[in-house]
Amino acid sequence: MNQHIQAVPLEKAYRLLNHGPTVLVSARHDGIDNVMAAAWACALDFAPPKLTVVLDKSTRTRELIEASGEFVIQVPTVRLLQLTHEVGTRSRASEPDKLDVSGVALFRLGDSGMPFVVGCSAWLVCRLVPEPHNQQAYDLFIGEVTAAWADERVFRDGHWNFEAADPGWRSIHHIAGGHFYAIGEAMQARIDPET
Amino acid sequence: MNQHIQAVPLEKAYRLLNHGPTVLVSARHDGIDNVMAAAWACALDFAPPKLTVVLDKSTRTRELIEASGEFVIQVPTVRLLQLTHEVGTRSRASEPDKLDVSGVALFRLGDSGMPFVVGCSAWLVCRLVPEPHNQQAYDLFIGEVTAAWADERVFRDGHWNFEAADPGWRSIHHIAGGHFYAIGEAMQARIDPET
Repeated sequence: MNQHIQAVPLEKAYRLLNHGPTVLVSARHDGIDNVMAAAWACALDFAPPKLTVVLDKSTRTRELIEASGEFVIQVPTVRLLQLTHEVGTRSRASEPDKLDVSGVALFRLGDSGMPFVVGCSAWLVCRLVPEPHNQQAYDLFIGEVTAAWADERVFRDGHWNFEAADPGWRSIHHIAGGHFYAIGEAMQARIDPET
Repeated sequence: MNQHIQAVPLEKAYRLLNHGPTVLVSARHDGIDNVMAAAWACALDFAPPKLTVVLDKSTRTRELIEASGEFVIQVPTVRLLQLTHEVGTRSRASEPDKLDVSGVALFRLGDSGMPFVVGCSAWLVCRLVPEPHNQQAYDLFIGEVTAAWADERVFRDGHWNFEAADPGWRSIHHIAGGHFYAIGEAMQARIDPET
């Protein structure tokens, strides 16, 4: 395991998604790994940390999650822009070698046995909270975060540090087609401006 | 109405939220307007466009939405950073003049009669899709977008144009406390790199 990857306390895990990055979703069942991209992922609760993610019925990754009840949400970086586009537009159903063609390298972390994508800035292991109506009617899945990690070169002590990290670590935010924006400048609101 | 505010076709409305900005949620019932901030808002579907937003039980805005069945999700800008922080930390329950103190100016758009926050870059009018279990168990609300507008100075012809617009138009992405990031550099993935 990369020495820079450190556990994130669960009470800080929401911060990994709070700024709305596009994420990669990975899952494993019966020896099959898969990875997809999702722009529609969002924090849902602080403690225990939960999140939502929208998974289209056509995706193989969704099938793996429904079968295994587990998945990983991870935050790709500017360096993984093309990889994110590839895993977001290719399907393992028609391309069994999707992961190789897309340039995905996987590693394992902790004792979950789940597939983690190399080069991301943060990883959240989730247990599916079954809500069949949401899944069927809206393609909406709820996960409870059971463990989280981040690369200390860009997230440390509970804080993103995009402003000091190499620009290759910035999160990416998808709009449509191949068009993304990287996260930008840090901004600080005045706390209690009247005091 | 500001001449720069133009209707966004419903099939492009998801793009207003796809990059994960922190939003303002406004609602009106029985002559009472309110506005809150929400980092946990996310697109849910393309056609008809739907979105999710997490609304804590303590918020007055949630009460207005439950009573009226309508709300507006709008995208604040760097210029509205402090306003976003104020409406996200003050409550109308304890401060009846919350909107004035926070510097919120409202206007009406279209025939909805709903409160729109002046200075945002985009506005999505939503009809609440009642899902009592989600609302009660997860504070999770689903809206169907029935109309959308954007300021053409930063969103035009279905595309954000942060790279050419004044930097004050950038969306803001909340992490925690008073800490935000503005959206940054545009990035383009190669389409069909093998062809």
